[in-house]
Amino acid sequence: MYESLVEKLNPKGVDVNEVIQKLKDFSIETPSWGYSDAGTRFKVFHKPGSARNVFERIDDAAVVNKLTGAAPFIAIHIPWDKTKDYKELKEYAESKGITIGTVNPNLFQEDEYKYGSLTNTDDKIRQKAISHILECIEIMRETGAHRLSLWFGDGTNYPGQGDFVKRLHRMLEGLRSTYVSLRENDIMLIEYKFFEPAFYHTDIPDWGTAMLLAQKLGRNAKVLVDLGHHPLGTNIEQIVAILLSENRLGGFHFNDKKYADDDLTTGSINPYQLFLIFVELVKGGVGPSPHSKVSYTIDQSHCVKPNIEAMIQTINSIEIAYAKSLLVDFKALQEAQEENNVVKAEEILLDAYYEDVRLLISEARRQKGAEVDPLRALKASGYEERIVKERG
Amino acid sequence: MYESLVEKLNPKGVDVNEVIQKLKDFSIETPSWGYSDAGTRFKVFHKPGSARNVFERIDDAAVVNKLTGAAPFIAIHIPWDKTKDYKELKEYAESKGITIGTVNPNLFQEDEYKYGSLTNTDDKIRQKAISHILECIEIMRETGAHRLSLWFGDGTNYPGQGDFVKRLHRMLEGLRSTYVSLRENDIMLIEYKFFEPAFYHTDIPDWGTAMLLAQKLGRNAKVLVDLGHHPLGTNIEQIVAILLSENRLGGFHFNDKKYADDDLTTGSINPYQLFLIFVELVKGGVGPSPHSKVSYTIDQSHCVKPNIEAMIQTINSIEIAYAKSLLVDFKALQEAQEENNVVKAEEILLDAYYEDVRLLISEARRQKGAEVDPLRALKASGYEERIVKERG
Amino acid sequence: MYESLVEKLNPKGVDVNEVIQKLKDFSIETPSWGYSDAGTRFKVFHKPGSARNVFERIDDAAVVNKLTGAAPFIAIHIPWDKTKDYKELKEYAESKGITIGTVNPNLFQEDEYKYGSLTNTDDKIRQKAISHILECIEIMRETGAHRLSLWFGDGTNYPGQGDFVKRLHRMLEGLRSTYVSLRENDIMLIEYKFFEPAFYHTDIPDWGTAMLLAQKLGRNAKVLVDLGHHPLGTNIEQIVAILLSENRLGGFHFNDKKYADDDLTTGSINPYQLFLIFVELVKGGVGPSPHSKVSYTIDQSHCVKPNIEAMIQTINSIEIAYAKSLLVDFKALQEAQEENNVVKAEEILLDAYYEDVRLLISEARRQKGAEVDPLRALKASGYEERIVKERG
Amino acid sequence: MYESLVEKLNPKGVDVNEVIQKLKDFSIETPSWGYSDAGTRFKVFHKPGSARNVFERIDDAAVVNKLTGAAPFIAIHIPWDKTKDYKELKEYAESKGITIGTVNPNLFQEDEYKYGSLTNTDDKIRQKAISHILECIEIMRETGAHRLSLWFGDGTNYPGQGDFVKRLHRMLEGLRSTYVSLRENDIMLIEYKFFEPAFYHTDIPDWGTAMLLAQKLGRNAKVLVDLGHHPLGTNIEQIVAILLSENRLGGFHFNDKKYADDDLTTGSINPYQLFLIFVELVKGGVGPSPHSKVSYTIDQSHCVKPNIEAMIQTINSIEIAYAKSLLVDFKALQEAQEENNVVKAEEILLDAYYEDVRLLISEARRQKGAEVDPLRALKASGYEERIVKERG
Repeated sequence: MYESLVEKLNPKGVDVNEVIQKLKDFSIETPSWGYSDAGTRFKVFHKPGSARNVFERIDDAAVVNKLTGAAPFIAIHIPWDKTKDYKELKEYAESKGITIGTVNPNLFQEDEYKYGSLTNTDDKIRQKAISHILECIEIMRETGAHRLSLWFGDGTNYPGQGDFVKRLHRMLEGLRSTYVSLRENDIMLIEYKFFEPAFYHTDIPDWGTAMLLAQKLGRNAKVLVDLGHHPLGTNIEQIVAILLSENRLGGFHFNDKKYADDDLTTGSINPYQLFLIFVELVKGGVGPSPHSKVSYTIDQSHCVKPNIEAMIQTINSIEIAYAKSLLVDFKALQEAQEENNVVKAEEILLDAYYEDVRLLISEARRQKGAEVDPLRALKASGYEERIVKERG
Repeated sequence: MYESLVEKLNPKGVDVNEVIQKLKDFSIETPSWGYSDAGTRFKVFHKPGSARNVFERIDDAAVVNKLTGAAPFIAIHIPWDKTKDYKELKEYAESKGITIGTVNPNLFQEDEYKYGSLTNTDDKIRQKAISHILECIEIMRETGAHRLSLWFGDGTNYPGQGDFVKRLHRMLEGLRSTYVSLRENDIMLIEYKFFEPAFYHTDIPDWGTAMLLAQKLGRNAKVLVDLGHHPLGTNIEQIVAILLSENRLGGFHFNDKKYADDDLTTGSINPYQLFLIFVELVKGGVGPSPHSKVSYTIDQSHCVKPNIEAMIQTINSIEIAYAKSLLVDFKALQEAQEENNVVKAEEILLDAYYEDVRLLISEARRQKGAEVDPLRALKASGYEERIVKERG
Repeated sequence: MYESLVEKLNPKGVDVNEVIQKLKDFSIETPSWGYSDAGTRFKVFHKPGSARNVFERIDDAAVVNKLTGAAPFIAIHIPWDKTKDYKELKEYAESKGITIGTVNPNLFQEDEYKYGSLTNTDDKIRQKAISHILECIEIMRETGAHRLSLWFGDGTNYPGQGDFVKRLHRMLEGLRSTYVSLRENDIMLIEYKFFEPAFYHTDIPDWGTAMLLAQKLGRNAKVLVDLGHHPLGTNIEQIVAILLSENRLGGFHFNDKKYADDDLTTGSINPYQLFLIFVELVKGGVGPSPHSKVSYTIDQSHCVKPNIEAMIQTINSIEIAYAKSLLVDFKALQEAQEENNVVKAEEILLDAYYEDVRLLISEARRQKGAEVDPLRALKASGYEERIVKERG
Repeated sequence: MYESLVEKLNPKGVDVNEVIQKLKDFSIETPSWGYSDAGTRFKVFHKPGSARNVFERIDDAAVVNKLTGAAPFIAIHIPWDKTKDYKELKEYAESKGITIGTVNPNLFQEDEYKYGSLTNTDDKIRQKAISHILECIEIMRETGAHRLSLWFGDGTNYPGQGDFVKRLHRMLEGLRSTYVSLRENDIMLIEYKFFEPAFYHTDIPDWGTAMLLAQKLGRNAKVLVDLGHHPLGTNIEQIVAILLSENRLGGFHFNDKKYADDDLTTGSINPYQLFLIFVELVKGGVGPSPHSKVSYTIDQSHCVKPNIEAMIQTINSIEIAYAKSLLVDFKALQEAQEENNVVKAEEILLDAYYEDVRLLISEARRQKGAEVDPLRALKASGYEERIVKERG
């Protein structure tokens, strides 16, 4: 049937071999915290077999990478992944085929951060936050990671609680104190979020604020787009395109949402939107493994799905969106746009979207020696049963 | 200055004495869980002095009631407020001037409820949930409470995870199994919620579903309106009015929100909306202390505010909205509505809303022996310092 | 390649012939107003070739039906489609292969309806609205239509402007006055809408209110679901399933939206959601041509797309969603649901959704003598050029 | 009673005379289009007495200004307010006490703009748009206006219809072509809008994009904040504060909304939010009549309210919010913020908000010779009856 698909795509001008090559090259980063227990404010359900420390998380990430052939990076989160010897951690990861790509400081789970970390009115607490970020930059050096990914829970819950401008100025000042410690090819990713855990205002609510901070910091500061961090109805693909054109797109946190920041598995609510985002990335020249330029990081909360299965499903979903975007006839699209042929332009996108690309992905996996059906292979491997026994 | 206000209101046809009487009669229920630590999925910040058990919660509720003169009821939550002897609990509460008004079962924090409680496909888990509700009905008897307040975290996170209709039928069946154990003057409150903790669908997402269940159960089943459980832009006052006219309004969970179910203090984001809700209640004949008919219960998550202060502030906010609604000239309003005089009708509401009613509330408090400025009185009392010392 | 698809689907247990038969039987209703000029409050752009009267609209509908083989019904709107002799209209339509399925009264474009139609405080205006609905019921008799589709712009723009309850009671009273004139197999469809053109409150804002009215009217009153009439984040497929299970689902207005009631072409923003809706319909036993039970009506505003192309594209989009829903393995889905296997259940839906079903639709069209590629066939036919010339 | 209020405010540290002076100085701009018929996409209801041309609009604006003493500016819209001799228009306005403050080009109501104005792929259409803007800059010279207010309906309705980046680049290029024609003290206001009339994407969807354009243009380019142009849940006061601190806040379009861009009268849905916006303006040093720096322009669609009454009501509402913001004890607020006393900080705002400031506004009006109760004075004047007779 793969041949039948090739026969169908070739006349459309699709270079199937090139598509397969890009799918083989495609790589993504999974988050260490995606292998742990997760939940909501109402309840964290324990999942038997959840990874209990960074080494077990790397083990799980390595399984996901082995099965899919597409997840060679891991993002770590300090202090959740704290360990004594980060060089050892790096070596452990590498022995499993995993590279530590991104380091995430935690600036929201200390009692001191109740009223903000870098934006706090208390200089001691700001210094604590700065020190923690500097510690993470040090961990980047030791682990070979080049991306520092900053998300802040900072904000206020009530009118009057804080001064928007002073808080933002403190944020900038704090970022500057740490930005200067980055090396030439390090990237500082600034993540924005519309709401939560602060409910009245967040200090970096939107890409405009994140961009403003990045502009003031320098060219190594970039904006991170988490798909769940926008108000409903936002055209995220437009934000992606504009950030890319301004050379400020730093990376993604992939997930999906129905109403708020639900952190559901990517593409589970609106897979077409995911495709449209990849259309912008492909059009904007972002390659299949942009790692050092635009990080592709999964960030989900697997409340009811088994972690490893959820991660594999997510990679499937993202690869499907990516593969479809590779089928778009961009030349014809541009022509249709120029003549304002709305129906034709949309049909060009839909022609790619309606295609069943799963055989292309299977073929790419086959060629690179990964599993054609990773979910099934996971079941067959007995890995899940094993970790349940070992980890409880 | 109170006299000056009376002079101003009398010519408008406001019977100030009647307003004062209603404000004196006004009573509300505070939730036991509002006196404990609270937080978001990212962090629960410990507050020194937080109540550690139901007795301490009653102590705090009694302080709030003493200071405001308006909060004689408490809602309890099982198992958070579990105790050996509920008769003793009742007596303890009464000795402090507090009546246990509502019992809330917990149907979302057991591992078994990961995929639903009453809607679970597993009969054993449904039976467990039913047993827990029946236990709460038994606690109602022992504590003298007459309201069973049901909120379910039930729902699904992904398309396909559950069957909407079968789940709702199981919900109905489960509710029926417990409804029959209610006594003549007991009320079953069915709460709806648009989303969270289930993100793709909740089994009772809106008042329409809650109403449908109530209709099928019988006249003692009513709908509970939590102000934070609607999509943005919802006209909540309309829902309140329609439920009231259908004799299905059972009660409230008062709070406020900016985007999602933020559980902020009531009226902190849109106090005008709170006023408009009270306008419907007053127009619909709901008295100042509807207790047995329409429960006025506060349900908030005091993430960054001290619990007792937050509760007092909330009562202030609600009393202000209520007092303003008592100033509305409903006769003139109806006339303006009948002649479609939009500006005049709105001005009638605004004339009441713009009034500074704080002196009316002070006067009512003075007359009933409560504190004129309960926040200041709390500070002066040293209660907060005392509980910090005692409870840590 | 069709054979290759059949080979792929057969082992999955899909009875391809049955699927093809259902796709052949699939039928939908297009709206007469979809063939006219459309726009926003800012501008209505004239489209050369737009139909100028009901006969031209039927001509266009007949072309759409001929090309797609799936749109034999038309919904008419009075007075936009007013004509002297409705029997003649019926015959004209039938001569073109078109059946008049639904009659829509207009209760929002007369100056008198500024403050409401059936909900107006003025008895004369209410009577005018009732008379107009009765006129439409008469037109149903003359045209052989069996569905009366009621949408009201009724509502208010400001707090205080109207009395929610009195307005709803007047609505019910008005509906009753007309419901009694329906015949045994006529259906009254009651449409709800969250907002617009009234902005503060609409008299029938949600399915709960529409259902309440339907319950009070009788079994021939049903609820119409317009996909654009919900707040963002609403799980529409759940509403569809619940209404169906309560025997109150009357029909659809198909379209799509990004933020408000955008009336974009169906499936253009979230095609997965459209699929999930059809999954509920197929599971609930709604056949491919439910006409007399559940009306499938398109309701869009073709602001920037040519009307006929937009309509064909929409039918493609809907048939694709429907075809995919027919591939779902409902038995396996139910099993996965019963064992709470979230990933498996979702994969079962996705396995159907990811399939490229366009060849199935082509085959069905080929078998029933319609065009395999109706958009291309439209271009080739020269119809669009012809109407531009004739109609200007 | 005014004395009683003064007695109450003085001990709080409020300099009542200063407040009165600011209220006397307060000035706002009404929009010429607010005196005409208005409606929704479903119906524009004719209002007897609506102004039919720019001279009648100025007459109405003059009445509003005379009655309120606070609306000396008018914003005009070309071509709706097109006239032969703009010098004559200026003189006519001045003779009525009205200054033309802002000129608004219309870039959305020509057939050519169906697919965009400055962003159009067609160079001729872009040139047409540029010419029209240049025409408006010329009108600014002739009328003495110093603000050019740009709102674009530009955007797309469907995925694929346009290229986000190319469109934005064309927008920038077009703006540049006209920016250079501005004089030293002219301001170019760039308005953003989240959606509508384009539904899939708008070319300037948010303040981030407007700011980006302004940065690239120069220091005379500023951002205009229309209160209705954000997704629900947006913290508008934060955007205002940040823009102000970046010296990019150019002005407002005042209105209110329940769900979409409803253009309801300002403060009619959430008056507390309006107050919070003024709190930021006052804190940020924006004076009562910022005219040349930050324009205060009303932009509403009076669908169901009489135009002149709606405008007066709006000015009342805005002055009330402004007056309350003047009562805020900013010093105490800052202290509470610095010590993270959330309750105290909020209470400081609420203490100002709960105050009934209507007597302050009356006093200011009395002192400056305007009407104490402008709505009543309008009725008494017979102006509305007169224009109904004259204009029909």
